[in-house]
Order: sequence, then structure tokens, then C-alpha cells
Amino acid sequence: MAVKMTEKFTFTLLAEDSSARAGTFTTPHGMVQTPVFMPVGTQATVKSLTPVQLKELNVQILLSNTYHLYLRPGADIVQEMGGLHQFMQWDRPILTDSGGFQVFSLGELRKITEDGVTFRSHIDGSPHVFTPESAVAIQEKLGADIIMAFDECAEPLDKDYSAKAMQRTHRWAQRCKDAQSRNDQALFGIVQGGIFDDLRSQSAEYITSLDFPGNAIGGLSVGESKADMLRTIEVVNQILPKDKPRYLMGVGTPYDLIEGIRRGVDMFDCVLPTRLARHHAALTMRGRVNLSKAENTRDPKPIDPECACYTCQNFTRAYLRHLIIAREMLASTLISIHNIHTLVSLAAILRESILAGNFESTAESLLKGLT
Amino acid sequence: MAVKMTEKFTFTLLAEDSSARAGTFTTPHGMVQTPVFMPVGTQATVKSLTPVQLKELNVQILLSNTYHLYLRPGADIVQEMGGLHQFMQWDRPILTDSGGFQVFSLGELRKITEDGVTFRSHIDGSPHVFTPESAVAIQEKLGADIIMAFDECAEPLDKDYSAKAMQRTHRWAQRCKDAQSRNDQALFGIVQGGIFDDLRSQSAEYITSLDFPGNAIGGLSVGESKADMLRTIEVVNQILPKDKPRYLMGVGTPYDLIEGIRRGVDMFDCVLPTRLARHHAALTMRGRVNLSKAENTRDPKPIDPECACYTCQNFTRAYLRHLIIAREMLASTLISIHNIHTLVSLAAILRESILAGNFESTAESLLKGLT
Repeated sequence: MAVKMTEKFTFTLLAEDSSARAGTFTTPHGMVQTPVFMPVGTQATVKSLTPVQLKELNVQILLSNTYHLYLRPGADIVQEMGGLHQFMQWDRPILTDSGGFQVFSLGELRKITEDGVTFRSHIDGSPHVFTPESAVAIQEKLGADIIMAFDECAEPLDKDYSAKAMQRTHRWAQRCKDAQSRNDQALFGIVQGGIFDDLRSQSAEYITSLDFPGNAIGGLSVGESKADMLRTIEVVNQILPKDKPRYLMGVGTPYDLIEGIRRGVDMFDCVLPTRLARHHAALTMRGRVNLSKAENTRDPKPIDPECACYTCQNFTRAYLRHLIIAREMLASTLISIHNIHTLVSLAAILRESILAGNFESTAESLLKGLT
Repeated sequence: MAVKMTEKFTFTLLAEDSSARAGTFTTPHGMVQTPVFMPVGTQATVKSLTPVQLKELNVQILLSNTYHLYLRPGADIVQEMGGLHQFMQWDRPILTDSGGFQVFSLGELRKITEDGVTFRSHIDGSPHVFTPESAVAIQEKLGADIIMAFDECAEPLDKDYSAKAMQRTHRWAQRCKDAQSRNDQALFGIVQGGIFDDLRSQSAEYITSLDFPGNAIGGLSVGESKADMLRTIEVVNQILPKDKPRYLMGVGTPYDLIEGIRRGVDMFDCVLPTRLARHHAALTMRGRVNLSKAENTRDPKPIDPECACYTCQNFTRAYLRHLIIAREMLASTLISIHNIHTLVSLAAILRESILAGNFESTAESLLKGLT
């Protein structure tokens, strides 16, 4: 089943194993094999890694943040430098978020109206406005392959607010669609509705009706319980069309990837691997490892003896701990390499298991290791 | 002319062009083509770079600091982890300094006697002693290919102190020789004597008489004038044997490399390329470039259009400035790559010119660019 969504974007569903799916998504900068984990390059760089290192990690697609790039260096400068791919020298696909989640996270610094969001920069306090139209215009200047509708991410536990935010997200989704002027970017819609099944169903129905080339589940992993998160994914994915990619925004522990893929998610992004690395923690399929602990001082083993990443193939825990204690930047680089490898390869392993028809047993055995 | 200094160390002088020399120096971890620039990996890491990146930069040999590794993680731990090569995953040659320069730089925190130096750690104030014997023992645990005699680096302008420090350095050089127990490490002697020609001559004669497999010029680039530095190099190199490598310690601007090689130096090390990178300055053969300046904001050019390094082949000044302003670690990595490339390739270019017999014209044209 292949659906040609535009000239440049095609999603092909290759296999399903109960709800889990394996597919390929083509973009102007190449193909993405799903399910996929997308590392985050907030400020046009995945912190501490070069594009060469990211390619060696088999990273297929990166996420970058519209809010941050709009403030610094500015979308005009990125455009003048040939767009984000050229600017950061990443010639594979890129997805930009809409800035919605970031401005809502500013709390006191922002005010929401029907038109859009007025906010103050976290850098210098200067005033700015994002509207659905400007969020699309900025993303068109940045030039990612996949761009996101401007949405309102409400507190997930407040039903009245969730309903209002969802309805506004729907009106804004239509406005984003109307505002799009480039045909070489796939605009994805975003489903909202907090943790309320009726709202999520309503939102999934509406966003589906707008016929975006891909659909995202927003507003999760923001404080709700795991049970609420997983049930919400199920509710939404029962409605979202099968022939388009599904992106679960901002989610990315090994557990979340397995459970998300099990429920039909195709794409994930999270700052977790690089943020944990800067806090000296390694993600493994047998839990997290705090490398700064004294017990690693003389440990000649790698982070994970079964891991095939550059860091585990070369460096001991003793060396990594030394770099951490000596406050050496290489610690962040080497642990980021390991952490990204863990999530990128987890998605690849699960993809293979879907294609081979043994997703459930693979997922079960991986989940057992995590606990 | 090849002199077999031990089973494992051979220096072959391939060509001379007036005083400039091209040679090869073999070590247990491979050959070094001289003249050569050695990047500094103070704490068992060249700051912000992986060994893979260093090899791509054609780095032949690294320097690491005994003082720092002794304090953190400790020489015993490095030894337990298989030695410094294994610990930091650098399988090419390594040189360790003796810790002499570092402890003398501690000022108030150290006290010198005939036996050695008592000092307090810059990290936690704990008391320690380095003697010629312990400096060798620590370096034997670290396991570098080239180790350095423990010397006293005096204030270069005080003749009385310079004379006393030089004489002590001579006595300590003999003690280091006597203390050496491994035969797979080349112990280099160090010439001292401040900026005083008579002292430097006397020191070069004495150190030569001890028949080390290589000789170093210490105590320069510590506040004296360029004229004093260059004259001192000339005085010393007129005496040091031609059939052994000559290492000018802690020196490494492009100008210093050219003028040092012109006066018969074979090896250089300096923290300059990585330290400047962390302060956002690029070293080029046409002077330094401060990349944080506003004039780079929209500059689509690389640091140096004629540079073949990864950074210049891929990234604009606008992108590098963005990384700097956004406080992204990748800025240090990319500028370090450029700066190390500048010095490593400068040494390689000058080596080729010596082999081709046109060193003087090459040096003159490079020096013209720098001014």
C-alpha cells in the first residue's frame, strides 16, 4: 500500500504486526525507514556531535526547534544561508516543530488569544508573536522536509481547558494549511485533547479530516501517568489513517518507544539521549547507568558490553568517569553517541521484528530487560 | 643517516635545508614524520575531539600531562586500564611531559629542594612530592612512547636563578636516566638556561653528553621576547646533536613553528589550537579570526576559503558564530578541528619544502601571509 501524498512525499506501509507498523517515508532529502527515532538538534546542532558522527550513528532524520532558531540566529539568516540543511550541513531529512510547545512552556512569559501567542524571549525578554500563519512562514524559511502545525498544548489534566485548547488547535490547523505556500514540505497536523478519550477521539477525527500528509500526537509526556499516555495513543491511533505516518511528539525513553510502536506510532523525538549525556547518565536496554559514580573508577568494562556503538567499542567506564570528573567535553560527546545509538538501534531492531512478524516476542524480551 | 638509539627508537634525518630538517622518528606505536606539531591532550583527551577526529586530522603524536594525570585519575588507574594508549584509545605515539613545568607554574603552592618539588594540588590542595625518580616512575606507569626528564623551569630573565635551576636540571637529568627501568620508552633530556647564551650553551653541552635518544629545549615561550626566544633556539641547536630529534616545548603559533623549524627544531607542542577554539578564535595562515564578532553573523564564507579541514569544507562563519552565541559545544569541536589542522598541515607543508629543497622561499611566503 503506497499513497503518493504530494510529488515528493510518499508513505509506504510495508508490514503490520498487530498494531505495530514498518514503513518508508520519502522526502526531498531521502527516505526514512519507520519506526524511527529522531534526535533533537534544538539550535541547529545535536549538542556536541558533528553531522559525520550522526551519520555514523545511522540517524535518518533530525528534529530542530522553530522557537529557538527564530530567536537565534533568526529565520532570515538561516534562509539566507541556504536553509537549515545547508546551514547545519545535514543533507538527510529534517523536521521542525512549530514553536507551539516551546511558547506554551514559557508560562508567565506568554499570552494566548485566538489570533496566536504573544510571548517574551527567554534570552532577552524581547516581545514576539507567533500565529499559525507566522509559524508556517518561519518554517518555510527554515526549509525542513516536515513542518508542524501550530497547536496549543494544554495542561493535560484540566478537561475544560483541554477542550478549548483542542478546538483552537483545530482552527489553527486549518489556518496553517491555508498558510502553506511551499509544496516541498510535508505539513503534519497535531492531535490534542489531554488525557480525555472523548476529546482525543474528536481531535483525531477532525485532524484526519484535514488530510495532512502525516499526523502527530501532541500534548503527551507532559506530566500524565504512563497508563494515561498509552491509552491516549491507542484511542488516537484507532482513528488516525493507516496510510500516513504517525508521530508521537517529545517522547523517547526505550520503554516509550517499545510501547508507542506497539500501539502503531511511526516516529519519535526526544532530547533525552543528549540531555542525559550532559548529566552523565547512559541509556541502556537494561536501565540507566550513572557514570559519575565512584564504582566506575576502575571499571574496565564499557557502558554496555553488548552495545555496538563507537563509545562502547572503544572506551571503558573508568575513562568515561575520568572525563566526567575532569569536566571534559568529550564525556558529553561519547555518552551522547551511546545514548542516541541506543534509541536509533532500538527503533531499527523493532522495525526488523515487525518485518519478520515477531514484534510481540521481541518487544516482550526487550521490556523484560528494562525492568 | 640513521641512528638506532634503542631497539625501538630510530631517528632518520632525511634532508636538511640550511638549518631546517626533515626526518622520521620510529616509536613502539609507529613512525613520526618530522617536523611535527603535537596537539595537547592534558587530561588524556584533546579537548572536545575523539581519537577518530584526531586521526582524520593526520595527527601523528599527542602530548599528555603527567601532573594532571597523576592527580586525576591517578597513574595507577591509567596503568591498571592498560596504560595511556589503551585508556584514551590512541594507538599512535604519545609523549608525556614530566610535570616539571606544571608544578613550577603553581607558584605559591610549591617548594623546590634538591630532592624534588613539594606542591599542593590545584584541585583540592592536597600535598604531593615530585622527584626526578617519581616523575620517571609515574611516566613509566602512564606508558607513553616518549617521556621527559624532570627539570626546573626558572624565570627566564633572572640569570642567577637561571644558572641554579639549570645546574639542578642537569643533576636531575642524570637521576632521571638512572631511574628509568623500561626500555620501550625514549627518555628525552631538557636544556634550560633562560635567555642567557652562555648558560644555554653550557646546558646544551651537558645534556648532549648524557646521550638521551632525543633532546628538548625547555623554558621558552614563558614571557621572554621573540628575539630572545629565537636566538636561544639557535644557540642550543648549534650544539645539540644532529642525529637526534629536537623538541621545542610548549611552543606553537604558526610564526613560532616556521621560525623554530628554520632553526632546526623537529617537534612542537602547544595548547594554543584547542584553547583558542574554546575562546572562539581561529588560527589561520593570515592571522587570527575572532568568530564571535557581529561581522560574521551573515558571512557565508568558511573560516579560511583555502583550508582543507572538515570545518572549512562544510561550515560558514555565520554557522560558527551562531554556535558560539548559542553556547553550543559543537563550536569548540569545529574550531579545534580547524586550528589543529592549521598547525599539523603547516608542519607537513614545511617538511615537504625541506625534502624538496625550497624551505626558505616557502617559509618566507608563509611568513608574509601572517603579517
